[in-house]
Amino acid sequence: MKILVPKIVVAQNEPKLNYNDHFVIYDKKLLEDKIFKNWVSRFRFKYAVEAGEKLKNLDLFSDHIHNILRIAEGGSRINSFVAVGGGSVGDFTGFIASVYKRGTGLIQLPTTWLSLVDSAHGGKTGLNCGAYKNQIGTFKFASAVYVVKRILQQAPEKLFYEGLAEVAKTALFDSSVFKILNSAKIITPNYILKNSDAIIRAKYKVVKRDPYESKNIRQILNLGHTVGHVLETQYKLSHGQAVTDGLFFTLNWSLRKGYISANQHRKIDDFLNEKLQLKRSEIKRPLSENNFLRVLKQDKKKITDKSLLFIFMTERQSVVVEKVTFKSVLIEAKKQGLVR
Amino acid sequence: MKILVPKIVVAQNEPKLNYNDHFVIYDKKLLEDKIFKNWVSRFRFKYAVEAGEKLKNLDLFSDHIHNILRIAEGGSRINSFVAVGGGSVGDFTGFIASVYKRGTGLIQLPTTWLSLVDSAHGGKTGLNCGAYKNQIGTFKFASAVYVVKRILQQAPEKLFYEGLAEVAKTALFDSSVFKILNSAKIITPNYILKNSDAIIRAKYKVVKRDPYESKNIRQILNLGHTVGHVLETQYKLSHGQAVTDGLFFTLNWSLRKGYISANQHRKIDDFLNEKLQLKRSEIKRPLSENNFLRVLKQDKKKITDKSLLFIFMTERQSVVVEKVTFKSVLIEAKKQGLVR
Repeated sequence: MKILVPKIVVAQNEPKLNYNDHFVIYDKKLLEDKIFKNWVSRFRFKYAVEAGEKLKNLDLFSDHIHNILRIAEGGSRINSFVAVGGGSVGDFTGFIASVYKRGTGLIQLPTTWLSLVDSAHGGKTGLNCGAYKNQIGTFKFASAVYVVKRILQQAPEKLFYEGLAEVAKTALFDSSVFKILNSAKIITPNYILKNSDAIIRAKYKVVKRDPYESKNIRQILNLGHTVGHVLETQYKLSHGQAVTDGLFFTLNWSLRKGYISANQHRKIDDFLNEKLQLKRSEIKRPLSENNFLRVLKQDKKKITDKSLLFIFMTERQSVVVEKVTFKSVLIEAKKQGLVR
Repeated sequence: MKILVPKIVVAQNEPKLNYNDHFVIYDKKLLEDKIFKNWVSRFRFKYAVEAGEKLKNLDLFSDHIHNILRIAEGGSRINSFVAVGGGSVGDFTGFIASVYKRGTGLIQLPTTWLSLVDSAHGGKTGLNCGAYKNQIGTFKFASAVYVVKRILQQAPEKLFYEGLAEVAKTALFDSSVFKILNSAKIITPNYILKNSDAIIRAKYKVVKRDPYESKNIRQILNLGHTVGHVLETQYKLSHGQAVTDGLFFTLNWSLRKGYISANQHRKIDDFLNEKLQLKRSEIKRPLSENNFLRVLKQDKKKITDKSLLFIFMTERQSVVVEKVTFKSVLIEAKKQGLVR
């Protein structure tokens, strides 16, 4: 029943799909691209949305469904929903595919760097309830992922670095991705596109061992995200910068805990700093203990009132999940100058 | 991962559950029962709702989720949602269990006859979008079903006949249920309660062969519902009366098509009329062809613009699914005096 690892197709242009029974939900900004505009016009069922967190607002969900049902003409059968856009479009469309008439198929067509390398994969969908993110959602696995190089080549360079932080994360738990990146002289958007199939598959290697996040294996994908998320919330950092900071934090803590040697630390530090050109934020005003702990305690990897699961790097280019207390994270954050 | 056939427990009173991590959603009318009121008060997380189709209104879903998140105190972990009520409470709660934080467990505690014998079982959940029913929903299988005899014994007798029509349907595709019913002198509510485990299991025998309704096997459960639903909509009949009428319609058509002998026809007619005391409606103003066809064509078993799947009874106390044209249903409905 469940297709965990989708078909992955990397090509210059949009795929040929069945234009009569696929329902496309797409980021309306893409209409600026004439080839896309022409492609999307062929679909009988299509819905243009404004990308962003507002799209995931649960309070607006019912309005969207009324629109979608009207477009789908009530009784018609939809084979699959096709998500064309970044993370918000993918999360929103994936959720709809899992609940529309008790479930249809799903196809992902990521158009941002972050969705290309991360959010379009792994089956997580979600809507937000007020400030609480992804409170309502499902696991819904796409049957196919189409990477349209032409669209991604037009995405702004700043957003490339958003995606690159997640690629760095992937490289730090998957040695084949590390080798691919480390063997390049410089990492260009085209180089990532060329290797996107391998990067996407690395995520699915983890996901298929723990598709419903019930075994602590999928936690691996949160490498760098625990402290990263605190900084993202408190300093309003971009997700990519926050993950970058989280990876450096984890790298240093992994050394102090003895999980990695000074040599391995240097190797990974060089990889992040030099090869990928990912730079740690300068924290001029460290957080108060209270502000740090308050956000940390909302972490979904929290397992008791006092502890959470933290993902450390290991010597052999892999990761290990360890239960740590909130207090120990706080002490380390002080040592690293994030908390005053 | 999926538990298709739940634990089924029939007892006089409410079960002992974990009162700290189960979230109960219950029909507020039940508070009139003191034992129930005392039981539900033990739960840390509880939400009283007004039963009925309004509960399934998609436009109000977001409000309910805000309430539920507030009651669940944002971050707390909910092991399972417990649905205590009739069909609307079960459908609503089942949907929430499948999308709350990407899915929790589900327990069903049906308190009406119809939910006891049918709607609480089989995993279908749904919300309505305007006049369109169950447009948004999932398949979500309960881990346990608790039948609380004390509550059902208090349900009005009129509603007992609502449930009995679905029991009759079950008996007509499952010979073990037929035998149980046919061996009783008269069918009382207590007799149905005593045998509820067998009646519920008969439905799961079908469901587990086709849990996601992808193979036409689950269609069996729609026996009597195709024409029943047209009458329900057009004459504002109760669901139970509509199913009763649909079963008689199917019985007569099965005879005319040669699927059953005159003997078998008489046997089933006696079973419905005499044993179960289910009576066909008197149709004084037959429907117009247009009104009949318009509703018939909305049937979810529609497979082409001209045909749908119809479930006939067979000689050996079983059923057969056959593709029939809308026109042939219309002709039969005329013969049986439903259409002028």
